[in-house]
Amino acid sequence: MPELRKDPIMGRWVIVASERETRPTDFKFPTDPTNEDLSKCPFCPGNEQQTPHEILAYHQPGRHPNTKGWWVRVVPNKYPALRIESDPARRGEGMYDCMGGFGAHEVIVETPEHNILWGDMEEKSLRDVIWAYRDRVLELKKDPRIRYVLIFKNHGRAAGATMSHPHSQLIALPMVPIRVSQEMAGAKAYYDYKERCVFCDIAREEIAAAKRLIGQNQHFIAVEPYASRFPFETWIVPVQHSCHFEAINEKEADSLAALLKQSLKKLSSQLHNPPFNMTIHSTPISEHGSPHYHWHIEIMPKLTHVAGFESGSGFYINPTPPETAAQLLNRH
Amino acid sequence: MPELRKDPIMGRWVIVASERETRPTDFKFPTDPTNEDLSKCPFCPGNEQQTPHEILAYHQPGRHPNTKGWWVRVVPNKYPALRIESDPARRGEGMYDCMGGFGAHEVIVETPEHNILWGDMEEKSLRDVIWAYRDRVLELKKDPRIRYVLIFKNHGRAAGATMSHPHSQLIALPMVPIRVSQEMAGAKAYYDYKERCVFCDIAREEIAAAKRLIGQNQHFIAVEPYASRFPFETWIVPVQHSCHFEAINEKEADSLAALLKQSLKKLSSQLHNPPFNMTIHSTPISEHGSPHYHWHIEIMPKLTHVAGFESGSGFYINPTPPETAAQLLNRH
Repeated sequence: MPELRKDPIMGRWVIVASERETRPTDFKFPTDPTNEDLSKCPFCPGNEQQTPHEILAYHQPGRHPNTKGWWVRVVPNKYPALRIESDPARRGEGMYDCMGGFGAHEVIVETPEHNILWGDMEEKSLRDVIWAYRDRVLELKKDPRIRYVLIFKNHGRAAGATMSHPHSQLIALPMVPIRVSQEMAGAKAYYDYKERCVFCDIAREEIAAAKRLIGQNQHFIAVEPYASRFPFETWIVPVQHSCHFEAINEKEADSLAALLKQSLKKLSSQLHNPPFNMTIHSTPISEHGSPHYHWHIEIMPKLTHVAGFESGSGFYINPTPPETAAQLLNRH
Repeated sequence: MPELRKDPIMGRWVIVASERETRPTDFKFPTDPTNEDLSKCPFCPGNEQQTPHEILAYHQPGRHPNTKGWWVRVVPNKYPALRIESDPARRGEGMYDCMGGFGAHEVIVETPEHNILWGDMEEKSLRDVIWAYRDRVLELKKDPRIRYVLIFKNHGRAAGATMSHPHSQLIALPMVPIRVSQEMAGAKAYYDYKERCVFCDIAREEIAAAKRLIGQNQHFIAVEPYASRFPFETWIVPVQHSCHFEAINEKEADSLAALLKQSLKKLSSQLHNPPFNMTIHSTPISEHGSPHYHWHIEIMPKLTHVAGFESGSGFYINPTPPETAAQLLNRH
């Protein structure tokens, strides 16, 4: 059974997912894209029986569940890192702390099309993906044991994707990830000193400076952040203060879809469809909104030859200044 | 010029190294090992003129600097992320904070042999590498502007190594990396509650439990940590409380070399010479020792298909429990 374990030094929780256990020979190094047999892709239309039963689908009227005719489909992960049936009770193990692998792990199949990039999807389709994220968060919020819903996308094998059909993932957790707590603490310290939200300040500063922006519309900016850890790191930040991602309305979802598409199109054309990781950072669903923390999206292209020791030390060397990245991305 | 920039939310400093600036086409994806021409390797004996002038070398008596006859050689990085000539003055840039790219960036060439793994090196050679780390830290400690010396090794292209000749790197910084500060704060909180060092407790617990140990000698243990973030993550921890790595004595360096060799041999034989990152975590050179923080080494094999969104969220999913990893590594 999967288990959540706490690092006694950092207080960081890790999912130790022994059900997904892999033998050393399962780790392959250079991963060449293999010729894929689409009849075997469990995310392709017609293969709905190959996934666990769907949780949510946006579909044509009159369609039967788990058949064709959908445009976004959410299913449980077949190899879940956490399970909703597990007992979230905490316990000790020697000097350490652990708890059952309670939570949810879902896959958002973003489109019936097997080979399409975010930059090439219709805005309407991307909007539906965002709306599916929102619907799932609102549903999971009803379970008081869940404190955080982590929404992320790994695109490309180098970024950890094991399926090539466009999909995102959602992990519902009984605790707040340490990076989010640290971000909230940092934003709180800024607020305590300035009485302004740091993300609101960033949005204003970046719009005024204009040299790290790669896109902007009524509700959002897309920016290469000032202290980017990775080349072409891109954040999408609401212009107006907004704590919880799931409070997004239809107009904002339209704006977000437009800006996501545009940003990914820029990244893809400059970097030739790079592998990337996307995560949504939001106030924990279990907490009320606050004037100091502001949800946003972080997109981190995975470009080989960078990010070596960094994840261990927390110290990053970024060879591409964000101003240079923005300039390159803003060429057509 | 390289620059240090501070993230206004997390307080994390990032080196933005525009001198090493790369164009998007410089990021190549699948990296096949190419046939190497050893006459062009700047770290091979006979090619000493291809590196900047050496800072330190352990060598045969009577040798001229920057010629053959050495067994460990330390040189400035040809493409340094930071420079000792830069001005460390801090300044504002709009709402942000930055400072000149002051610091040092050195390469420790570990052996004259171009193709040898840590697991196959003589213990004596590895001991000399450790001793070179120590000598450099003691020397850099004399500069009061330097607060932390980060020692790390990237092995294999997937782990960020761009040269295949065995080498480590050292970056001397005018601040403490955030991961180290967070670790020290976490260890302090544990000490405040328990009045014991968390690392001393880990060493005792792991020796007693024996199920995550992969090696042990008089001065050190090698362990797959309880809340491992990565499959086969391995830490080497002094058994006795010790704050600063650079306080290591000759006997301890011998022990450390023996255990490093043994651990790397195990990792290499189970995982077929995996790419990995190694970092030494130590009390900042600018601080006195404390009863709560204990230096140690972290080794993180880079196994593809893992570590996707994790570096962005701080939340890790580890498919290989450390007990399983230890069991596999302890087979012969």
